[in-house]
Amino acid sequence: MSGDRVGRYVRMVAVEGQGEALAAGLLRVAEGMRDAPGCELYVVNRTPDEDDAVWITEVWSDEAASEAALNRDLGEAGLGSVLGLLAGPPEFIELSPVGGPGLS
Amino acid sequence: MSGDRVGRYVRMVAVEGQGEALAAGLLRVAEGMRDAPGCELYVVNRTPDEDDAVWITEVWSDEAASEAALNRDLGEAGLGSVLGLLAGPPEFIELSPVGGPGLS
Repeated sequence: MSGDRVGRYVRMVAVEGQGEALAAGLLRVAEGMRDAPGCELYVVNRTPDEDDAVWITEVWSDEAASEAALNRDLGEAGLGSVLGLLAGPPEFIELSPVGGPGLS
Repeated sequence: MSGDRVGRYVRMVAVEGQGEALAAGLLRVAEGMRDAPGCELYVVNRTPDEDDAVWITEVWSDEAASEAALNRDLGEAGLGSVLGLLAGPPEFIELSPVGGPGLS
């Protein structure tokens, strides 16, 4: 695969009726990633097809940057409070970003 | 859902062994989207889990921008040649981007 960049889509489903709260919590986490070294994309998405689902689009300059940011103390990243809203474990689609508009 | 932005993940699977060619073709399409009005993200990704699959991450300022760009003559966008490599129809996950690093 070209380049060192890594990415992923993360699907998280909240307990019923908590989709909006989950998105708001993940947006706080996303804002916390703004100054994380190597963070190129950490976009929070809802989806019209599933009220309680939230998708995160991540792109990192490399695997190390991704691991460093995500392994920070869950509390510090704010993920702890968010995980409590989940109906089940997150699902991951691992990606190797190739390029295109939106990537620096 | 907040804001007018729309987004989607598009999963495309090439006929066996054509994953790299599909990604290269879609990268040409992506470069063509660089000046499409309202195109915020059009990122081509491969995935370590599936050699012949390519995922596109799209974010548009609104639905109209998305439709205008994607409804351009398939030939002009270069999509025509790419679709010939597919083993089956693309799959779509429609998104409502909420925010986070990487979105202007």
